[in-house]
Amino acid sequence: MRELKKSLDFYTGVIGLKVVGKGTMPHGGKYVHLRGKGSRQMLELNWYPEGSKFYSEYAPGDELDHLAFVVKDVKKAFKELVKSGAEPAISPKDSKGTEVYVKDPDGIWIELLGSG
Amino acid sequence: MRELKKSLDFYTGVIGLKVVGKGTMPHGGKYVHLRGKGSRQMLELNWYPEGSKFYSEYAPGDELDHLAFVVKDVKKAFKELVKSGAEPAISPKDSKGTEVYVKDPDGIWIELLGSG
Repeated sequence: MRELKKSLDFYTGVIGLKVVGKGTMPHGGKYVHLRGKGSRQMLELNWYPEGSKFYSEYAPGDELDHLAFVVKDVKKAFKELVKSGAEPAISPKDSKGTEVYVKDPDGIWIELLGSG
Repeated sequence: MRELKKSLDFYTGVIGLKVVGKGTMPHGGKYVHLRGKGSRQMLELNWYPEGSKFYSEYAPGDELDHLAFVVKDVKKAFKELVKSGAEPAISPKDSKGTEVYVKDPDGIWIELLGSG
C-alpha cells in the first residue's frame, strides 16, 4: 500500500482486524499480517520504500497483488502444479527464502506457503 | 478473468479447489465460487462479456479486484464503517441488489456480504 500507517489504522481501527505478525523484509520493505476474529484467512499489507526493487509508482489495479495458498511441501507442490500446467514464476531453486510462485492463466502470481 | 473455462480448469484441475456455487449476473456476467478443502476462504472468479458495463480491456494489475468481508448486518456495518472513516463506494440505498461497498485508503473496494 502507499502509506503503511494509514492502511494499518484502517484495517485495524475501521475494519476491526487484529495484527498477528509484522516485520521488515531484507530489501527494506515492511509487512503486516492481519486476521479477522474467528477467521483463518490472512490479509498481508506490504509497503516498499522508494529505491526498493519492489517499489513502483501505483497505478489503478496495482493494489491487490497476489494469492497465497498454504501447502504441506512447497517443493513438491511447485513440481506438481507445473506438471499440471501452471506456469512457473519463481521456482524453489531460484528462491532465496521461502518465496515460491506459479502463475494462473491471467498471469496472477500464486504464492506457495509451507505449513511445516 | 479473461477466459472463464481456462481459469476454472486451472483453479479446479491444477490448484484443486472445488466449485461451491455459480451463476449468471443480471448484466450477463458469470461468477464461480471456489473453495479449498477445509477452508472457509472463498475465491470468486468473475467474467464479463464484451458490452457489459463491467467489461474492460485488461491491463496488468486488473486481475485481483476487491476484498469481501462477511458481516451480520450490511446496512449497520456500512453505517459504522463510514462513521469510522471509510469512504463510501456503493451505499445500501444505491444498491440494487446486495452489492454494498466501501473503499480503503488506497481506493481498494471492500464488499460487505450479509451472513443472514
